[in-house]
This record gives sequence, structure tokens and C-alpha cells, in this order.
Amino acid sequence: MFKKVLVANRGEIAVRIIRSLKELGIKSVAIYSEADRESLHVQLADEAVCVGPNRAQDSYLNMQNILSAAVGTGAEAIHPGYGFLSENSRFVEMCEDCGIKFIGPKSKTIDLMGNKAHARQQMQASGVPVIPGSEGFVTDATMAREIADKVGYPVLLKAAAGGGGKGIRRVSDQQEIEKAFNEARQEAQNAFGDGRMYLEKIMENVKHIEVQILRDQSGRAIYFPERDCSLQRGKQKVIEESPCEFITLAQRKYLGKIALKAAAAIDYVNTGTLEFLMDRQHHFYFMEMNTRIQVEHTVSEMVTGIDIVKEQVKIAAGEPLDYQQTDVVCRGHAIECRINAEDPQQNFLPAVGAVNYLYFPVGNLGMRIDSALYAGIKIPPYYDSMIAKVIALGESRISAVRKIKRLLSEMIINGVQTNQDFQQALINDPGFINGKFTTEYLEKVFLPKWKKEEA
Amino acid sequence: MFKKVLVANRGEIAVRIIRSLKELGIKSVAIYSEADRESLHVQLADEAVCVGPNRAQDSYLNMQNILSAAVGTGAEAIHPGYGFLSENSRFVEMCEDCGIKFIGPKSKTIDLMGNKAHARQQMQASGVPVIPGSEGFVTDATMAREIADKVGYPVLLKAAAGGGGKGIRRVSDQQEIEKAFNEARQEAQNAFGDGRMYLEKIMENVKHIEVQILRDQSGRAIYFPERDCSLQRGKQKVIEESPCEFITLAQRKYLGKIALKAAAAIDYVNTGTLEFLMDRQHHFYFMEMNTRIQVEHTVSEMVTGIDIVKEQVKIAAGEPLDYQQTDVVCRGHAIECRINAEDPQQNFLPAVGAVNYLYFPVGNLGMRIDSALYAGIKIPPYYDSMIAKVIALGESRISAVRKIKRLLSEMIINGVQTNQDFQQALINDPGFINGKFTTEYLEKVFLPKWKKEEA
Repeated sequence: MFKKVLVANRGEIAVRIIRSLKELGIKSVAIYSEADRESLHVQLADEAVCVGPNRAQDSYLNMQNILSAAVGTGAEAIHPGYGFLSENSRFVEMCEDCGIKFIGPKSKTIDLMGNKAHARQQMQASGVPVIPGSEGFVTDATMAREIADKVGYPVLLKAAAGGGGKGIRRVSDQQEIEKAFNEARQEAQNAFGDGRMYLEKIMENVKHIEVQILRDQSGRAIYFPERDCSLQRGKQKVIEESPCEFITLAQRKYLGKIALKAAAAIDYVNTGTLEFLMDRQHHFYFMEMNTRIQVEHTVSEMVTGIDIVKEQVKIAAGEPLDYQQTDVVCRGHAIECRINAEDPQQNFLPAVGAVNYLYFPVGNLGMRIDSALYAGIKIPPYYDSMIAKVIALGESRISAVRKIKRLLSEMIINGVQTNQDFQQALINDPGFINGKFTTEYLEKVFLPKWKKEEA
Repeated sequence: MFKKVLVANRGEIAVRIIRSLKELGIKSVAIYSEADRESLHVQLADEAVCVGPNRAQDSYLNMQNILSAAVGTGAEAIHPGYGFLSENSRFVEMCEDCGIKFIGPKSKTIDLMGNKAHARQQMQASGVPVIPGSEGFVTDATMAREIADKVGYPVLLKAAAGGGGKGIRRVSDQQEIEKAFNEARQEAQNAFGDGRMYLEKIMENVKHIEVQILRDQSGRAIYFPERDCSLQRGKQKVIEESPCEFITLAQRKYLGKIALKAAAAIDYVNTGTLEFLMDRQHHFYFMEMNTRIQVEHTVSEMVTGIDIVKEQVKIAAGEPLDYQQTDVVCRGHAIECRINAEDPQQNFLPAVGAVNYLYFPVGNLGMRIDSALYAGIKIPPYYDSMIAKVIALGESRISAVRKIKRLLSEMIINGVQTNQDFQQALINDPGFINGKFTTEYLEKVFLPKWKKEEA
């Protein structure tokens, strides 16, 4: 087992990883930007190295400095968390060159799943149903129209190398497609140096359902009960839960089976999540695979009792997975609310400030708040606005709903504007409580209603 | 189900009960003394009534005022918590007279178990092994000597109505017994108006093992995995855990079986705990039964996922127990450290003060801190010194030990002296880590060693 691991991240996920490292008896090295000197992850780690100025580009994305910190402190492995360098295959290769273990999949797996068109093809080859669309790349506008005509409008033209909304066009009918294709290809070429495109049908009235897996170096693997992450705003998840009440045990097993089969086909190692859309007939369509730990892994931990980060570290160290599929039993229902420093009244504009009073309701069974907050911390403007994840586990969904309501009503974060009130309105909304929401519900139904009530 | 319940307690247990009531959708009424006006339980409850001045005698033990508060607010039931009026059969009768449901056993059960000599007899009649000693009362010194000669010295002479160390004498040999008996009987007569005595052999090299049960009004019942509460100072538990690593599954089942049989024999309703001593040969000897929720119920909740307070409320409302014995599965190992406002360097003298900085490490799987603390609270001198219970759940005992170490190392309570450092020394002690400690370990082995190191 590793003796020392560097955590190449900040905020709640860095704190969460450091805590699991401590419980494994592994020394931790934090990295931080100048703005994060006083951060909790710096205080909790055994060592901490400043890797650059405030901007993420200069610090948390500074591969050279991070690797120097790892080598300099004698860290044997790097846990990337999520975001930043977690899905950067070049960084993985650089780690390997320095003799440092990257706690995640191999670089070629990250590359394969990072190219969304290749990922589609790979999944299809493994028997995973994908969103109707192109097989491989779409080379010109005529081909795009032919495929769109076949799968039906509206469709999405997407850059294979895409991300951050660049090189994407929604196309409603045949007339628009040629112009949209040429524009998107040019945008992708400019943004990524890669103009390769693919096409997918736009699915409506669907739920976002995802399945996380863990797979060790010898191919031993488990899947977790599905998560429902349909409540989203601007493609960002807002509330996540596990399991999904509308999915049967047979469907859960089916999803798990195809996820493990797909992972075996690419000899996937460590943790990853297959994201699907589920239509009203409960057909599943693969969207993409995240090759890292995700924000919402917590709800899966709560219902199964498995510490996923500990397993990640053990797998990277070459140890066998501690669990068999029969050990993964879903006990109860877990819900997570993301608390962001932002102003919902001002179109969710990120907020900054110093936390001058903090109360986390830490007692009783089945709760957890993952956060890097403490009374006195200043929230810098340079990074993601998520500052806490409030998680409730209940015997049933309704019991988890009641518990998360209680937690949000007791929590106090003063000194910075947050979305706490917004989240409270959402979890008290009948459309949340009945659980039937689709990916469009939050923006198209709840938000207009909420704005009206606030006005 | 009740619509409104009064919580006749303060501190962490009042907060813990109010939180479960909220999750059951039941309105809560807090009571408070003048000193507790700013307390967390007052802030969290739906309503709060001041029941008297600072001294517990005048407020939390003021039966008349508490019942007036219940009647005045329309509360249908009273949860007594632990301590205060929780084992006062007269209060239970007064509740009944007011048409208010007492959330606990019947008054006659409390009486029966409250008289320690009767409890011994009753348990023996149900086939529960008891500590060798008298059958029923010891009427004179000659009888005391005869029994002591038979069971072997040292023995304890105890007042049947006893409590608070009154009417108790340790007797090392035949010569001492007559004088000790007469003194103790007189003391008991003076203290309790009841000079009835009984006798027990003093057990050495034993563990304190206890078994909690839940039993509903129709006799449906479950037992929880045993707890090891051997780490005690001055008869106060300091660290508790569940399960006990040295007890086999067969022994757990045996304990559970006799506990449920004994409960059935007295038609016990609600929750209760049978306390045993376990000798080196793993023989169990009944000591006494607590007819209320205990401080350490939390570790049982953590390993089973069952909210015991919710079940107490449901049982009192006449609902059937939600669980069968097969639902009670012990998953992992839980440890609780009691954090007291006290100065271990000054013989654990209780401390007071205002909490001016507070940090509870609230993230990651398997932790819980039950506490009524918040930043700014003043800890009054009038009540019990326990201010927080830090609880860790791990997959194994060693994993729970590592987690509780981490939690204690991260927690910050500034402004009042606590036993946090003492607890940290204790959980890092090899005698704690190997788990083999008996009831004498803390005072006779650890404490002298610790004092030496501190000096």
C-alpha cells in the first residue's frame, strides 16, 4: 500500500479524499493556490505545497508544478478528485513518466471515453444501447442530414473532442442542418484543433440515470445501485439521489450487467460512471462515461456503506477489490443537495465572501455534510461555486426527503449568499416530492414557478 | 400517531429526540430552565416552555410544571430522554392521570426494575443468570454472612432502593460484615426511607456487556447486538462500542434470547437495556435493567441503521414495531467517545464557559456527532457535563478506531475545558486498541499511566 499520496484538488473533494487517506493510514500531501493558503484541505493534510497563483490554470491545472510537488514530497500516487486534471490523459502519462501512480483509469481509457464519438462506438460494440445517431463521425452536412432524417428531429450536432458547450448545435429541422453543421465544425476546429463531429437525437421527457462501477486490476468488479440525477440547471446537477424509485430490481441488474460488460471490454480499471438517459418506456440510452470520482458518489456510499475513495486507492495500489456484487446491498434511500455560493435571484451569479457564522446539523442517524467550510473561511472567486454537499439517508425515499428538509432547515451559513433557500423551495416542491421529474423539470417547470413566487 | 410530543429533557438527547420527531412529522415542545433559554433544543423545537429556575430540582425535575406545559401546549405524549424523570414511576402515573402518554415502559415495570433486589429475583425467575448473591432481601447481618461465605468474598451490600452510591458497602471478609451491614442499612433507611438490603459477589476481571431491546404493545420484539461499555470512570461510561469483538454469534444470540424472554415475562413495553457482567469464561451475570433510552444507544443505531427513538415513539403510539429480528443485522463496528466539559488534570472537575469557536468534522461516511453545542453557546454549571458524543462507524473495529481517532483530531471546541485530549490519549492506548479492557482498566491501569505522562 502507498505510504504517501498527493491530492491534486481543492475544496470538499480534497478534504474528503484526505480523510479517507488518514483512515487508511496513508500520509497526505495537499496542493494549493495562493488563494487557498488558509483552506481546510491544507490544514488537514500532513504536508501542503503551494503550486501557483490564484488562477486554476496556474495552480490546480499546472501539471509541471503538481508533479514537482509529488516528486519533492515523495508521494507515490496522485488522487485527482473530479474536475481539474482528473480526465486529462496527458497528465496521466506524465505521472507514469515520473514513476507516480495516477489513481484512476489508464490514459488510453481516458482518451477513448474522452472522445465522445469513439465512446459511443465502443459502447455499441459492447452491446450497450446508445442514443440514436451517427455511427462514428459525421464527415459532411449531407451525411448529417441523412442520419437526422432517419433518427428524427430535433438532433444535436456535437464536436467529438467537445466540452464546455463549444462545437454544439441543436437542429430542429432539415432546413437548418447544413449551416449548423458547417458552423459547429468550424467552432470545434478553432476550439479544440479537431473538427470531427457526431450526431445524436435529442431525447425529451427523459431521466438522467447513471451507474457507477469499481473494477480492480485483475478484473474483479462491482456496480452500485443507479443514481437519478435528473434535476439539473445548465447541465449542472442540483440534487442527486440513489436509488431511482421507478427502476425495478430487474432493470437495476440489467444496467449493472451492461455497465460491467462494457467496462470489461475496455479492461477498465478503478471507478467510472456510465451516464444514461431513460425514456418513459424505461429504455436506456448511453450518453457518456465519466472516468473519475463524481460529486454525487456520496449517495451511493450512503446506501451501500462502501467508501468508494478508499477502494479507488486500494485498486490503484494493486490490491483486490474488498467487495463482491453480493456485498453491494441497497439499504434505504439517499439524497444529496448541492449548496453553492451563488445568488439564485440574480440568475445564480457566483458569490464570494467570508463565512462569519456556520452551523452544520451534525447529529442523528443517516446524515453527512461534505464541505471544506469552517467559520472564518473566505470563499475565493476563482473556482467552482459548490461549497457543501448535504446528504440524507432514510429507510425510504419519503424518510430521506424529510431528513434532508430538516437538515436544510437547521443549517446556517452566514456571510456569503448561497442557494440554500432555493434548495429548500425545491425539496418542498410537489414535483420533487413525487420523484417523477425529468431532466427538463427544474429549468422549464420549477424555475419559472419559483421566480414568479419570489417576485 | 401523535401530532405533538413534549421532550422533558435538555442537551444533546433533547436535540436528538426533537430531530427524530421532525422526521416523523410530529410537532415538538421543548421545556427549559432559565439557564437554558438560549439552548439548541429550545431553538429547534416548534414550541418551548420555561418550566422553572436553573436548578434541575426546580425545572427539569419539576413534575407539576412539566405536566402543565404538556397540557397547556396540547402535547399528547412526553419523551423523557435519560436521567431526570425518565425512570420515575410516579411521574409516569401522573402523566397517565393527565391523559398524556409517557414514552417508555409502564410505571409498574419501572418500579419492578427500579428495586434492584426485585429485579434480580424477577430475572432469576425468567432464567436469566444473575450475579451470585442473595435471593431477595437480606434481613440481618447473620444472613448476610451466611450468603457471603457461600458466594465468596469480596461482596457488595446494596440498598434495594439504592442509587447515587448511598447504602452501599464493599466487604472483604467475614470480620467486616456485621458492622458494614448495619451501617449500610441505616444509611439506606436515612437516604431512601427504605432499609431493605441485598448482597452481590464482587466480580473482578469482567467486561460490562449490555443488550438493548425494543418491544411493542403486542409483544413483537427485537434485540440489538451487544455493547461493550467496560471503559468507565467512577461508574460513568467513557467509551462505548458495539458489537464486542470477543463475543461469538452464538453468545450474541443467547444474550438476545434471554433478554427477550425476560422482557416477555414482565410484558415489557418500549426500549430497555439489560446490563451484564461477563467473566473470562464468557459467563454472563445480570446486573440491572435500564428502563429508558441510554446515552450509548447511538452505537447500536449506527451498526443496524435503526432509529431507536423513532421506534420508541411509534411503540408508544400503539404502532407495531417496524422490524423483525432478521432485519437487525450488525454491519461493521461503532465506537462512541463522550466529550465532557471537565478538566481531566483536575480530577475531572466539571468546567463551564462559552464556546467561542467550534469545528465538527462532519464529512465522509460513518460518522455522527450528537451535541447541543453551537458557536456562542454558554455551558451552564447546573447540569451533566457531557456536551457531545462523537461516534464512528467502520467496516471493522480497527477501521472504526482509525475513524474516531481522525474525528477527535479534527474536532475543535474552544472556550471551555473538555476531556478531548484525554479521550485522544485513551483511544491511542494499546490497552484500548486491543479491546481486551475490563471495567477496572481505565481507573486502575490507564489513568495512573496517563497521570504520570502528563506530570
